[in-house]
Amino acid sequence: MSIRVQKTFEALFALEDLREIFRGSLPTGLDEEEEKAFRAKIADLKSIIAELEEDRGTPRTTMIADTIPLRSREEEYINIQPIQAAGRLTPEARKALISYGDGYSTCDACRKPFRLDKITKPSIAAFHEDLAKFVNMDQARVVPGARRGFQAVASTLVSKGDPVIVSALAHYTEFLAVEEAGGVVKEVPLDAGNRVTADATAEKIEEVVRESGKTPALVMIDHYDYQFANQHDVRGIAKVAHQYDIPFLYNGAYTVGVMPVDGKAIGADFVVGSGHKSMASVAPSGVLATTDEWAPKVLRTTAMVGDVTNRKFGIKEVEMLGCTLMGGTLLSMMASFPAVKERVNHWDEEVKKSNYFIDALLAIEGSKVLSEYPRKHTLTKVDTTGSFDAVAATHKRRGFFLSDELSKRGIVGEFAGATRTWKLNTYGLSWKQVRYLAEAFQEIAAKYDLPITT
Amino acid sequence: MSIRVQKTFEALFALEDLREIFRGSLPTGLDEEEEKAFRAKIADLKSIIAELEEDRGTPRTTMIADTIPLRSREEEYINIQPIQAAGRLTPEARKALISYGDGYSTCDACRKPFRLDKITKPSIAAFHEDLAKFVNMDQARVVPGARRGFQAVASTLVSKGDPVIVSALAHYTEFLAVEEAGGVVKEVPLDAGNRVTADATAEKIEEVVRESGKTPALVMIDHYDYQFANQHDVRGIAKVAHQYDIPFLYNGAYTVGVMPVDGKAIGADFVVGSGHKSMASVAPSGVLATTDEWAPKVLRTTAMVGDVTNRKFGIKEVEMLGCTLMGGTLLSMMASFPAVKERVNHWDEEVKKSNYFIDALLAIEGSKVLSEYPRKHTLTKVDTTGSFDAVAATHKRRGFFLSDELSKRGIVGEFAGATRTWKLNTYGLSWKQVRYLAEAFQEIAAKYDLPITT
Repeated sequence: MSIRVQKTFEALFALEDLREIFRGSLPTGLDEEEEKAFRAKIADLKSIIAELEEDRGTPRTTMIADTIPLRSREEEYINIQPIQAAGRLTPEARKALISYGDGYSTCDACRKPFRLDKITKPSIAAFHEDLAKFVNMDQARVVPGARRGFQAVASTLVSKGDPVIVSALAHYTEFLAVEEAGGVVKEVPLDAGNRVTADATAEKIEEVVRESGKTPALVMIDHYDYQFANQHDVRGIAKVAHQYDIPFLYNGAYTVGVMPVDGKAIGADFVVGSGHKSMASVAPSGVLATTDEWAPKVLRTTAMVGDVTNRKFGIKEVEMLGCTLMGGTLLSMMASFPAVKERVNHWDEEVKKSNYFIDALLAIEGSKVLSEYPRKHTLTKVDTTGSFDAVAATHKRRGFFLSDELSKRGIVGEFAGATRTWKLNTYGLSWKQVRYLAEAFQEIAAKYDLPITT
Repeated sequence: MSIRVQKTFEALFALEDLREIFRGSLPTGLDEEEEKAFRAKIADLKSIIAELEEDRGTPRTTMIADTIPLRSREEEYINIQPIQAAGRLTPEARKALISYGDGYSTCDACRKPFRLDKITKPSIAAFHEDLAKFVNMDQARVVPGARRGFQAVASTLVSKGDPVIVSALAHYTEFLAVEEAGGVVKEVPLDAGNRVTADATAEKIEEVVRESGKTPALVMIDHYDYQFANQHDVRGIAKVAHQYDIPFLYNGAYTVGVMPVDGKAIGADFVVGSGHKSMASVAPSGVLATTDEWAPKVLRTTAMVGDVTNRKFGIKEVEMLGCTLMGGTLLSMMASFPAVKERVNHWDEEVKKSNYFIDALLAIEGSKVLSEYPRKHTLTKVDTTGSFDAVAATHKRRGFFLSDELSKRGIVGEFAGATRTWKLNTYGLSWKQVRYLAEAFQEIAAKYDLPITT
């Protein structure tokens, strides 16, 4: 690890040790011994900062709790890992996490009616309203990951044996949510461009009705899928779903938080997003938004009454299991939110950078893009069977040669050892970083005599 | 906020800003402009540390992302909030969070078979094994809060209309988990000491069988309940449950992570614990542990097959919805775990401190303890109707006088305005802090002429 990054972590850790002295002290202040420990820790900290400033010194801490290595992937590398890009925390989220990491840190000012989304200090209630507006829906709740949003909706709408329409590119968590609710997934086939169309969805619904005698309980489609990040016609699909009186769940795991999403314009009954995938938040986090029509169903409050005590917990929502993200996860979402709201306005620029890189990769002869092209997303599936894999065929490190070469250039996140079809994501990289990335790939190609079109 | 605590946060934040410079740079190092920003930030940092050292200066940052106030409850106060005490992060957890806060930070080295609990770098797989051993069960999974553990078990075992035996002091999340699965809670009545006994459980099971004709699908009992933190005879109850061939879920939200828990000795089929409540972890987090007998059911892998693509996601567990805690939540659990494993050995001392404080409170005439006494837990429900509430009756601030007086002495976490029955938790306070706490209450009593027994 670079000394500077190493020393930055050490300084942060020294401050956490120092903070712990306050935590062990009385409200009246530090006693003599604590004061001594404080002075000693300040001295440590200053010496670490001197090392940081002068770019020198040896590592003092390499493991957290003896077993957890420091993670410097984002500080030292360009990270093109397909699912990590838009989940990187903003500096504000990291600060919120420092302040609100403790277990139930959101609950300091929890008052009647005792529900997370009603807390006003910090401004969790207002955040929920903003979140609903952000995706242009009526109500929103935070959930432990998009999958828990699918689960809440499936559990509400899907009964044993009910068919649920998903895409042939549906994420596995959609399969599981349907299975957990007792339903059965029915996939809409893709067109020649690996896209789900409204027509294909209508045909699939017809087929399911014909074969099972049942109208599907739900249509659940990813706006951009996890495989190719191709754009699917969610607006047309929502319209079709509604023609059959089927509610439509918009899976925005790859959209909410990176591009503008207008749930009402799409015709979504449910909008689900992922905090750790696309909203610069700590995992597991996400959002489930819905309309005033569907809220009473998916956000229904408990009706259970204790048979002995007559206890009722009326305000608690069954599918949410009451409160959901009671601490650092939620606060990271809230702290990133202003930046997230702003960044969706620059989605076009992100797509430009994505295409810039893909074009550079395509210039390496034999390389292909398996996703739709030009790209409409920053996540892309590429096929380098005709380029880098040809090198791998005779290289003693086989497919790992590419990882080695990338790593040498400070690039990580490709699937290690893969040189045929693999995915990458350029989201959030600056132009400087994207250019560097493009050059690195071409440099590696040149090194192994792969022809490059200019 | 105290200047020192304020400056500690500011120094941490300055380091996060500095860290962000690395994140925006190329792997080749900082360019001229970044270098300039780095130098400026180092200068800032040094000036903040000078202020920290000399205990002077004015606040530079009071809000995170413009809306989130700094939280210094643990640094500046003694916090007796009933549910927060054992969820406070260890310094190691805070360091892990700094390093692993980013969204999918656990997934850097995710390889086949692509499941969170199989990842070896960081040592997530080993942690899962340790976690199972820690509660002496065969297998363990991390879950987004104890409630998601109840949900997984209820969803597996409970069908529509099935009765589930819970305690008359059951937590609301148990009600919701049963309701979400379509079941009906049936409460075991308490004895005169507000405890659930094995005999009462047997009677309740008999009653339910008699009245509904159905054997309950599950018995789910809290070892220590959330109201009084009374100890309930989980071992006897497990035995009774098994006599009726009913699986037993041990709710260890108030035990796993603070006292030794031996699931096998108890006879538990499922052990559920809470990360943010009792394992010094970020919310939402928790553990679901089970036996080799029950694992194939509650941890069953998906059987769903895509009808068009024939896709199968065989390794993914339905009730877990695949991976569960993909980042900071899990890493905080892992980083706290060595300290958590150690601290359960000192539970007796924690109980001593709890009794020390309660005795001091009881010495204030008219005060009562509603929980069983002597205390066997650090969470306690007290009744100060005969002491502090008598003061509140004529005080212009009514019940808030007590909050005011406590706050003046640096004590927070009592339910603001409550002077009749309320709860507190002394977990994790040092002897010095507990003595201070006891003295503070007696000092307030003396100030308002409440008689104190000596």
